[in-house]
This record gives sequence, C-alpha cells and structure tokens, in this order.
Amino acid sequence: MGMAKFPLRRFPGGSIALGIGDDAALFRPKPGREVILTCDWFLEGTHFLRDKHPPQAVGWKCLARAVSDVAAMGGVPRCFLLSLALPATHTGAWLDRFLKGLRRASRAFECALAGGDTTKHEEILINVTVTGDARAGRAVRRSGARPGDAIYVSGRLGEAEWGHRTLKWRRGPLNDTDPLTKKHLYPEPRLALGQWLAEKRMATAMMDLSDGLSSDLPRLCRASGVGARVHLGRIPLPNLSVTDLKPGIDPVRLALHGGDDYELLFTVARRSMSRIPRSFHGVRLTPIGEITRDYEVQLMREDGSGQLLVPGGWDPFR
Amino acid sequence: MGMAKFPLRRFPGGSIALGIGDDAALFRPKPGREVILTCDWFLEGTHFLRDKHPPQAVGWKCLARAVSDVAAMGGVPRCFLLSLALPATHTGAWLDRFLKGLRRASRAFECALAGGDTTKHEEILINVTVTGDARAGRAVRRSGARPGDAIYVSGRLGEAEWGHRTLKWRRGPLNDTDPLTKKHLYPEPRLALGQWLAEKRMATAMMDLSDGLSSDLPRLCRASGVGARVHLGRIPLPNLSVTDLKPGIDPVRLALHGGDDYELLFTVARRSMSRIPRSFHGVRLTPIGEITRDYEVQLMREDGSGQLLVPGGWDPFR
Repeated sequence: MGMAKFPLRRFPGGSIALGIGDDAALFRPKPGREVILTCDWFLEGTHFLRDKHPPQAVGWKCLARAVSDVAAMGGVPRCFLLSLALPATHTGAWLDRFLKGLRRASRAFECALAGGDTTKHEEILINVTVTGDARAGRAVRRSGARPGDAIYVSGRLGEAEWGHRTLKWRRGPLNDTDPLTKKHLYPEPRLALGQWLAEKRMATAMMDLSDGLSSDLPRLCRASGVGARVHLGRIPLPNLSVTDLKPGIDPVRLALHGGDDYELLFTVARRSMSRIPRSFHGVRLTPIGEITRDYEVQLMREDGSGQLLVPGGWDPFR
Repeated sequence: MGMAKFPLRRFPGGSIALGIGDDAALFRPKPGREVILTCDWFLEGTHFLRDKHPPQAVGWKCLARAVSDVAAMGGVPRCFLLSLALPATHTGAWLDRFLKGLRRASRAFECALAGGDTTKHEEILINVTVTGDARAGRAVRRSGARPGDAIYVSGRLGEAEWGHRTLKWRRGPLNDTDPLTKKHLYPEPRLALGQWLAEKRMATAMMDLSDGLSSDLPRLCRASGVGARVHLGRIPLPNLSVTDLKPGIDPVRLALHGGDDYELLFTVARRSMSRIPRSFHGVRLTPIGEITRDYEVQLMREDGSGQLLVPGGWDPFR
C-alpha cells in the first residue's frame, strides 16, 4: 500500500544502496564514521489525536522526533524506516496528507525513506527508526557532564506545550501559522547546532528535551553521575502575548515541565563557555545553571533559596 | 520501565559502542561491510493473541521475524531496537516472561539489544528494528533472478500455519514441544544458510517466506522482472502425522499459502545447482521449479497441466 506512493527511493545523498521493496535496506556509512540508531513511537491517543492533529503535522512530527535524537548525539541523519499501521478508512486522503508532511520533513532533514513495514489496525500506529552517522568518537552522550560544567538550553522552553494546550482547547479549524502552535505541530530538530557542538567538541553531554526540563535534566545527571543547580530566573520562558495569559497558565511551569520542545540540553566545560555564542543560526543559547558534585537537581530562586526540581514532565506510566 | 531489566547492554560482539539509556545507539560496522536495516510490526490481534500465545513465544518471535529479513539478505545480525507499548497490567509477570523469550532469541541470534522506546497502551504493540551487516556488495537482493535459474526453498512449507491452526483450535494449555506448534511459536531464521549462500555468491536472488509461497514468489519475480514455474509435486509439504489430517486440512494448500515459515526462497544459476547440497546444517534444500522469461507464476501439476499461482497467503488489507 502507501509505501509505493512515497517517491523517495533515490533521495540525494547516495548512501542508500537499496530501498523499499526488499527484505531490508542497505546503508554504507563513510569510513571513519559511526552509525547512530534510534526509534520512536508515535501513537494515536498517546502522541497525537486523529481528529485534532492535521495529518501533515503527524507525518512531519513522527520523523522530526526521531531525527531529534540524532541531533542530540551531534549526528547527521541519513535514512529512516517507517512502520505504519492504519485502518482501511485512512489509506486514502489521510495517508496522502500524512505522506505529504513526511516527505517535507524527509527533505528538510535530508533523511531518506529506506524501508518499513505496513499493516492494518483500527488505531493509527506509527514507529520511526532513524539511522544517522557521526565522526567516530565525536557523538555526544548523556554521560559526559562534569561538576562545574555550565548547563545550556537552546530556544525557549514550554512553547510546544502551550501550542498543545491551544490545540486541545480550540474548536474549529486550526491556526497553523501561530508560532507556538507551529512549534507543537512542526518541531524543528536542532541538527545544525548539535553537529556544530559535536564537531567542535564543545558539549561534554547532550540530550534533546522531549519530556520537559524537569524530567530530562535529572536523566542527564543520572547518566553522568552528577547533580545540577538551575537558576529559575535564567530559564528562557515561552514567548506568550498578554492575550495568551489565561488563568491557570504559568509560563514558568510550562518551561519547567512542558514536553515536546525538542530543544537541546547540553553541558559545556567552564573554559569553553566563551566560545558558545548567544545564538546559533537564529536560535538562542542560554546558560541556565551548572553541574554539581551531589546527585540532586536543585532549582534556585532569585532570593537565593532552592528546592528540589521534581519531574513534572511526560511519563506515560504515571 | 522494562528496559532496565534487560541485562544485554554488554552483549558479546563488541560492536555496540553505546546501549540503552542514551538518545540513540551507536554501532561501528567493520570496514568493508554494509549496514542492513529492517523493521517489523508484531501487534496483538494481528500477529499474536494475548491469551493464546505464551509471552516467551511473543518475545522470541518478534525478534526472530525481523532477524529473518537479515538472513534473507545473507547478513549477520548485530543489534536491535525494541519499541514496546504495554498496558499497565502487563508490566509485571507478562513482561518478565516476554523478556525471557526475547533474551533467549537475542542470545541465539547473537543480536544485542541496543535501545528502544517504551510507552503505555491498552493493546500490546511491538516493533523491532534489526541492524546487521554483510560484506559490501555481497548482500543478496530480491531482484537478481534470471530466466533459467532454479528456485529453491529451505525446510518444509506450511508447518507454521498448521501450528497456528492447532493453537487456535486448542483449549487449555499448549503443547510447546510439538514440532509444528514450535515452528509457529519459535521460528528459526535461516541465518547460517543465508550467510553461506551470500558468501559463496550462490544465490542470484533471495527472500524469506513470511506471507506464504504463493504471495512471496510473485514478489521475488516482480522485483527481478521475471516469471516462474513451480512443480507442485516437488514442494516440501508439512510433516503431518495421520492423526493430524483432519477434514479441511490440505497439506498442499498449507504449503502453498501458509505464512510465517521464515524459510528462505532463493534462486540459483543452473551451473551452480550442483554445488547446492540436499541439506544444510540439517535443513533440507529443495529445488521446486525454475525462473522463466514471462511475467507469470505458473503452478505445474504432475500431469503436465499448469495454472496461475494465485496469492493466497497473508495480506493484512485483504
């Protein structure tokens, strides 16, 4: 079915020896490079809503999320496998629009469809595997943060969560052009930034912010065997207008716990801080705290008082 | 959740630089080798039944199916990504037994868990991506069959389908030791055979039989731009005992249309036929027909009459 409609077999790049239609795809990495492998669920009901999310956005985002994991290693995406399960009612117009969004993402990230598996299912189920590569030894792990390192985030945090809430509240057609809604629907993996940080050996540890700062920073700390101190006043809050500020919407909570931003969280040795620009390709880079020796993640207020940062982001089993 | 219980991070093989717990896995193929990528759905309701299939078999089979695609290219499996979605009720005993079967398969195929994604879902959803490698240029595609080539299959066909029916009919506990039930529950990808055929450049085209001969052989023919003539009397039928032969069970139909065998279907140039043994590591190899110039797949009876082989195997959208 759908796969045949996806004219990406001969995508520029030349690294895919064999695409859709064989038992498996073949991929020949250049010498001296390591292969990066990652996969991500994108499930109706959990990650998107059939009746709320435009099919193009579903197509874009399922690839963007997986590509973001490659960005978080400082890698270059090369090709992806699409596993798609659809009800028979969705193999026509819905699939066409889904593939349109997926193709756009595939072109934007220079990541070619190399194969996949399709089947029938009552719910829409998507799983995307992305393969990329990085110069051997240069991929940035989560485990390299050391006490004293500065903690940075790219972009603003909580905007995708705000866009998500807008989508849930709204009746009627969606405003695709609102920048915060767009951030929720069409996230942009920070590929150029991740590659630059890896290539210049600037980041000691890195990950992407998919579940929210309060969930993801403790993960980076656990992987590195360190703690962290984050300064509340330095966190780049979502760029909300006055009319956006409804009761119950707290920009600080959005920034701390909102998921789906796909910004990069990275640590930098103190001596390298001067080489980190204020913005990179138009995306701001903000130092929000520092790595500590103890295992706790502390949130510091401007009055000097601190409290433990308790994960409040996305955990499907909570 | 579950992933932490899976003690396979440092699986022998040494090719996995980084396992579970980072944004992505790193895999360093040896020089001169090509990377093989494949993924497979394994969904409750479609591919297995929660109440009928032992969790160990689900764990074994979800990896075996994807590894079989690597076998069908003549490749060596290296590592896999597991995407698992489970209801909260299945994160205890069911998951433990599932992981037990998966670990057994992982050891048997020397294919290490390198990462994955887990989430909550009411149905059990599994997607497995397997990465392997093959000497560059030696992977066997579906597209290389030429008129005059002999068509071979490994093993016997239709046994897994018979095992599947037994499982559906049976009430009460399952007889795991019955060889045909075992073939359905614990299929063995033909790795050694596929690698030998590729290494010796013996197979001109190859694929695994997942959907049944009548569905899969036409696919190989289409990919190669050829046709085929299959001799009904030469097809290795399932090894059924007299007591197995219930009304409505036709061994020939099982062999032609039964899926899930994961045997190899391959073509061999006429001049190489003498180098193909009758059996390989205890698995019989049977020439069942030959590749033809026209685009049809003909099934020949012993009286010399022929008919078109019409796909009757597994197609989720039929």
